[in-house]
Amino acid sequence: MIRRRILTLLLIVGLLPLIASATGGETTPVSIHSLAPTFFWMAVLLMAAKVSGLIERFGQPAVLGELLIGVALGNLHLFGITIIDAVKENELLQFLAELGVVILLFQIGLESNIQQMLRVGPRALLVATVGVVVPFALGAALVGPLILPGLSNNAYLFLGAALTATSVGITARVFRDIGKLQSPEARIVLGAAVIDDVIGLIILAVVSAIATEGSVGLASVTLITAKALIFLIGAILLGYCIAPHLGRLFAKIHSGTGMKLTLAISLGLLFAAAAQWIGLAPIVGAFAAGLVFDPVHFRHFKDPEIVTDVRKAIENLHSKEREGILHALERHSHRHVEELIEPLGHFLVPLFFLMIGLKVELALLAQPAILLVALVITVAAFAGKIVSGLVAGKVRKSIVGWGMVPRGEVGLIFASMGLALGVISKDVFSVIVIMVILTTLFTPPVLTLLLRRHD
Amino acid sequence: MIRRRILTLLLIVGLLPLIASATGGETTPVSIHSLAPTFFWMAVLLMAAKVSGLIERFGQPAVLGELLIGVALGNLHLFGITIIDAVKENELLQFLAELGVVILLFQIGLESNIQQMLRVGPRALLVATVGVVVPFALGAALVGPLILPGLSNNAYLFLGAALTATSVGITARVFRDIGKLQSPEARIVLGAAVIDDVIGLIILAVVSAIATEGSVGLASVTLITAKALIFLIGAILLGYCIAPHLGRLFAKIHSGTGMKLTLAISLGLLFAAAAQWIGLAPIVGAFAAGLVFDPVHFRHFKDPEIVTDVRKAIENLHSKEREGILHALERHSHRHVEELIEPLGHFLVPLFFLMIGLKVELALLAQPAILLVALVITVAAFAGKIVSGLVAGKVRKSIVGWGMVPRGEVGLIFASMGLALGVISKDVFSVIVIMVILTTLFTPPVLTLLLRRHD
Repeated sequence: MIRRRILTLLLIVGLLPLIASATGGETTPVSIHSLAPTFFWMAVLLMAAKVSGLIERFGQPAVLGELLIGVALGNLHLFGITIIDAVKENELLQFLAELGVVILLFQIGLESNIQQMLRVGPRALLVATVGVVVPFALGAALVGPLILPGLSNNAYLFLGAALTATSVGITARVFRDIGKLQSPEARIVLGAAVIDDVIGLIILAVVSAIATEGSVGLASVTLITAKALIFLIGAILLGYCIAPHLGRLFAKIHSGTGMKLTLAISLGLLFAAAAQWIGLAPIVGAFAAGLVFDPVHFRHFKDPEIVTDVRKAIENLHSKEREGILHALERHSHRHVEELIEPLGHFLVPLFFLMIGLKVELALLAQPAILLVALVITVAAFAGKIVSGLVAGKVRKSIVGWGMVPRGEVGLIFASMGLALGVISKDVFSVIVIMVILTTLFTPPVLTLLLRRHD
Repeated sequence: MIRRRILTLLLIVGLLPLIASATGGETTPVSIHSLAPTFFWMAVLLMAAKVSGLIERFGQPAVLGELLIGVALGNLHLFGITIIDAVKENELLQFLAELGVVILLFQIGLESNIQQMLRVGPRALLVATVGVVVPFALGAALVGPLILPGLSNNAYLFLGAALTATSVGITARVFRDIGKLQSPEARIVLGAAVIDDVIGLIILAVVSAIATEGSVGLASVTLITAKALIFLIGAILLGYCIAPHLGRLFAKIHSGTGMKLTLAISLGLLFAAAAQWIGLAPIVGAFAAGLVFDPVHFRHFKDPEIVTDVRKAIENLHSKEREGILHALERHSHRHVEELIEPLGHFLVPLFFLMIGLKVELALLAQPAILLVALVITVAAFAGKIVSGLVAGKVRKSIVGWGMVPRGEVGLIFASMGLALGVISKDVFSVIVIMVILTTLFTPPVLTLLLRRHD
């Protein structure tokens, strides 16, 4: 019954592109530049992203579903359906996707926490460093030049860089789903993944500057690394100094939900713009803005309406009975900014992953050489991270190593930026996306197995 | 103390454009097409919109503040500051603004309710009809041609049409702020305002089709009116038939918050695209989609997390004590879709009003002729609506009449669409925006006075 309904649904979603082509696609009688196709495709992509969430039934993270459905839609032309090809070039959708990745990194920053990052200590730092250095070396200096001879130095740099960053989201999701989020292995992996993200963002700043400026001198690498570090630390310090004042100031004007959200997003966007102006990727700024933000800056703002309502309703209860309810409220009041931004994330973030999937050319994999490259790079990606588990100390090393395997957002950001800058070709781009898909595809089952075997 | 802080704040916001010009504005070293300026201006406009919320301190609605600060920023060039002029032409911001107005009409549709609209009965319909016909006739056939001789017929049509639509939002806000939302006058005004919106959207469909096709024959007017009505009714019927099934179907895939939001927005966007494809404005479709949506379609979805949490926390309470809390929860559970879309609205809707304000040329008002026209049109706008109060039956007619005065969203949509289609000139556009600002500016204090005099 359920199965039949889902089938009907997939049919409907599958038919939408045909309906679009039948109704004319680009032409429209009313407006000067019609937004109808863009609105239509936004709706189709958003629904497709959510339908792809079915993949969670098979223990896979939603982001994988979004990538895969993107790849599927993007390669419909192999079956003669070309209607979706206009989407790949739609600048407005591309803009929304890029806005989405800024929001995503802002969210990741919000969920991360500097104190926490400092606390996980040297163990996580060690794992993170090995987990960055080994894959980078493998990609940029060994496997890359070996199996893809004749590319530019910049292409090898991007390939190596794309192999470095562990996906916090995917890893955390697997540990959480299995109920092992508090295990020592999980703590090390999550700490290392966050450090990885930061190192990854610095590498991103370095390699994209190298790619645009063309130089690979040690002096300029040092300069850019310094700039990225100074920006991150400076943004964090500046943020810590001004955020509380801004929070208080703006709460004076209006202490409602809208103001809270606007303040958070505006700072995220300002930091993103600032990062780009000094030559870093916008997402570096968005992440820094998220890190800086702390619920405490919003204590001058009103609580969410529902919290106020329930609080009023429990006024007459005895203190003991109120405690549990107040605890539930407290948690939501504390997480309110994250919850406010979530709808924006739901709206914009899937577009980013879909648009990446759309650009993967499956036809390239029909060439045995490229398929082989994808597999070798994927093996390097696995090996590079599993090795990092060896320095994890007295824990189950295999779990730490496998926990570090999933690449995700940052790896894909490297790939799409490399493509946009013209540093890597469509081939290498597709290879990287395939690598990300495979690491994300195999890790959850293996990790689940390893974790359960222990029990 | 508060005053000084607000001053500091205004200074900061005022300085941002200068900072932007100092940091180079358009140039950037990293990306191929840099999004930094767009991100920067989004942040500035959003913050400016929220700072303009200070106007609520003076009993004025926030939308007026957004318009006014838009006008202020858009005319900074009068003081030699030209940095903001690039914003007026920024296509990405324009796109977000248009997405914003689609979201807004979807929200208005969500808050409206067909049963409610049918119930307010013939009284409201009568008031609404008079309140549309009189201002339209005044603008299109009398005052327009009289004081603005020599324009095209289409320009007069747009001018008249822009005078028709009462702003539900502003009117409802005034009644609610004074605690008179349940008075008979309020019921009639709100009913009439909703009917006005629908009539306004049909007029919009008709006049924009006339403007693009160039014909004003009775046959084509009838055709377009029929098309608009059939679309509205058809969309509503279709929606009522498929929405419950879609809700159940998608809830099977994933019953979380993200799915709920995606489903709602996707249908809003699909209806918007459909409306434009058959020759209506996208907002007509968005409004219809909002009307169709009903919380009952989401009963298969999970409650918001906080509702579940609190429900668990009160499990052990006595039924009497639980009742009040459950009531508070029920309300939020019921309004959950509206609350989920609110953050998107906070993010996108102010951009629409700011972008409209930005396009007003204050320099035009330095010409006595245009200033005079703006004032005469404004007087016609007041008169046309106050007259409609006379048919309101046995209630205080002046309150109904004044309650109908504020123009808002729909009037501005007429103006910006007329400008985009090239039907009205910058002069007439500015005149309409000034009219909207003045009706919105004067009504709240007058209405407050009238309502309080009765007490």
